Amino acid sequence: MGFLSLPNKKSTMLKILIAPNAFKGSLTALEATSAIAGGFRKSKLPCELIEVPVADGGDGSLEVIAEHLGATLMTARVNNPVGAVIDARYGFIEEEKVAIIEMAEASGIRLIKKEQLNPWRLTSYGAGQLMLQAVTQGAKHIYLTLGGSATVDGAIGLLDALGVVFVNARGVKMERINMSNLHEVTHLEANSALQLLAEVKLTILSDVTNPLLGENGAASVFGPQKGLQEKDITSMDRLLKHLARLIFEVNGVAIDTVQGGGAAGGIAATLFGLFDATIISGGEQILTWSQFDKKLETADLVITAEGKIDAQTAYGKGPGLVALKAKERGVPVIGICGSVNADQLEVENFDAIFPITHSPVELAEALTFTPQNIERTACQIGNLLSATGFLKKS
Amino acid sequence: MGFLSLPNKKSTMLKILIAPNAFKGSLTALEATSAIAGGFRKSKLPCELIEVPVADGGDGSLEVIAEHLGATLMTARVNNPVGAVIDARYGFIEEEKVAIIEMAEASGIRLIKKEQLNPWRLTSYGAGQLMLQAVTQGAKHIYLTLGGSATVDGAIGLLDALGVVFVNARGVKMERINMSNLHEVTHLEANSALQLLAEVKLTILSDVTNPLLGENGAASVFGPQKGLQEKDITSMDRLLKHLARLIFEVNGVAIDTVQGGGAAGGIAATLFGLFDATIISGGEQILTWSQFDKKLETADLVITAEGKIDAQTAYGKGPGLVALKAKERGVPVIGICGSVNADQLEVENFDAIFPITHSPVELAEALTFTPQNIERTACQIGNLLSATGFLKKS
Repeated sequence: MGFLSLPNKKSTMLKILIAPNAFKGSLTALEATSAIAGGFRKSKLPCELIEVPVADGGDGSLEVIAEHLGATLMTARVNNPVGAVIDARYGFIEEEKVAIIEMAEASGIRLIKKEQLNPWRLTSYGAGQLMLQAVTQGAKHIYLTLGGSATVDGAIGLLDALGVVFVNARGVKMERINMSNLHEVTHLEANSALQLLAEVKLTILSDVTNPLLGENGAASVFGPQKGLQEKDITSMDRLLKHLARLIFEVNGVAIDTVQGGGAAGGIAATLFGLFDATIISGGEQILTWSQFDKKLETADLVITAEGKIDAQTAYGKGPGLVALKAKERGVPVIGICGSVNADQLEVENFDAIFPITHSPVELAEALTFTPQNIERTACQIGNLLSATGFLKKS
Repeated sequence: MGFLSLPNKKSTMLKILIAPNAFKGSLTALEATSAIAGGFRKSKLPCELIEVPVADGGDGSLEVIAEHLGATLMTARVNNPVGAVIDARYGFIEEEKVAIIEMAEASGIRLIKKEQLNPWRLTSYGAGQLMLQAVTQGAKHIYLTLGGSATVDGAIGLLDALGVVFVNARGVKMERINMSNLHEVTHLEANSALQLLAEVKLTILSDVTNPLLGENGAASVFGPQKGLQEKDITSMDRLLKHLARLIFEVNGVAIDTVQGGGAAGGIAATLFGLFDATIISGGEQILTWSQFDKKLETADLVITAEGKIDAQTAYGKGPGLVALKAKERGVPVIGICGSVNADQLEVENFDAIFPITHSPVELAEALTFTPQNIERTACQIGNLLSATGFLKKS
């Protein structure tokens, strides 16, 4: 209140919360965060940056969760969806015996070529190997993220890796179980697997709420993007129903309509039926781990990002949750993304959305420009806000 | 000053000056103006729009000038650069006997296919036909815009159409003059053409300042984009020098180094040498006609646009001039464009630049989205400014 109240530099610095998802096939969430931060730093906007990479259970979740929880990243040798041997990563927190497994690290669609897609043959065996490794290592709590899978196998490959035995009508133990021979199976011997996971809590992080079966189920909604032909949707759905009966006979748990059970080709439903498993929103949980709400309290502006931002983004996806929370607090929120629909003027909870493509170029070429395109876009937003006098709130 | 000073709605309305160039091969400046205005109208920003389509002498100048001067658009049957008969537009103001001719309407690169490019054969004959038509109609002042030409013929086709006779060493009048036979010409008979234009003032609107000859000349700088091979630049430059000598012999005017003489493959230099012609900046003149400075006085924000905005934009191009003038008055200026360089963080005088591409797509596909991509981008900018509290100045 004196005469010489010098301007307090800090008070004019805008606080910008940067909370992007990964750009699938191009940048991790951490890399996207850096690119956006770099753009604002190169802009003329005086600002302080709070960097919070986010994820929703989909591709890239492992890295983000490991970052927020301080888990160590390790690798295990596993079989990918077509059986090839690969080194897959998982996270582990030794003190707390907590493992973080991203299903897609072992069984993700990103691991195979498009022409290898085959829902009748591809299996989630590798994801089961990762779980087995975590349990062997002493995990008492496994967080399993389910987005980005290549399979529609209702976890039978995963169960196989955990020691569940698939038996046919003649009492023969079947080898190499997959969706092309599941119809022969008449019952499951799950005791050793149940024993193995008896002391293990399983938390499934899903980015969808679809059930296992029916028109909103794993086969109908997600089958086609994994190579399931339209004409085969009904047979696949029937086969998953057969699996649901086999699971019911083990534990008496009906999994047909469990919310989120359709995630990762039905893996969520099966694990829910057999083990001590809960299915939660990956997006919500990861924001909680990142202490997002607290960081949002002081933010003047929120930037989120993902490969594509459209009407679907509002439903459970990381950037959609970020936008919702920002909106609830009245903080302006801007989306940065690889692509939008040309006629998309608004997406719920977003104030504005800017695609990063610098020029008409094909996807393969565009992907090589992703980091600098993100940085440039963030820089333009910063410069625009600087030129138009965007001020710190209150 | 009374108690009940009701809020004056008008005072919170931002004034946005929308002044885009054409998007070459896609939208005229008028269409681009409408698309931007449409985007802001669909945004949440309370704003009043001032629409000022601009041009700089390049493609699309005719339409913009005709709009600002209230000229009537007419058509004349002419030969395009490869000789095909087309209907080309020009503008006419009957009361003032003023004609507006966009050279590219008759001799533009946009009129032919890429594989037809051939600087040795293509001629500006059609532009001469348009001038002849205007003079026949009684024009006393012709404004000729020179951007976007397909030719490097130093106006010899144009002169041919105006009745200049090209004579060879044997005294024979040459037919079908073009750059492949110009070397045979030893003098020009220009009397009838000089007579024809004796009472006609010619103002050349150019978007470049390059001279006719040398390393910054018509052949070196603009030849390659018109199909001139690197190895032929020197011969073409020498041929233009030969033409400069022929012109000098008519009037005693040296045209080698005239500023802007290299515009449209040397047309500017030749017309300057033979007739009562002045070469001016198309961008400046068109802004003057549009009363841009006056409209800028009350603007809170300026939006300009063009197919591409890069470092070159600052030099004489319409959007570059718009940005410069906005900057001089301290008004924030945003560029909207079809493409930028991926690593381009800043362009002189622009506060921010947003490319419109919605997604990685090839050029041909991107062009079909131009209007809605412009509209969407303008809408996002409006929404961003609305959400971040951009306020009216003063």
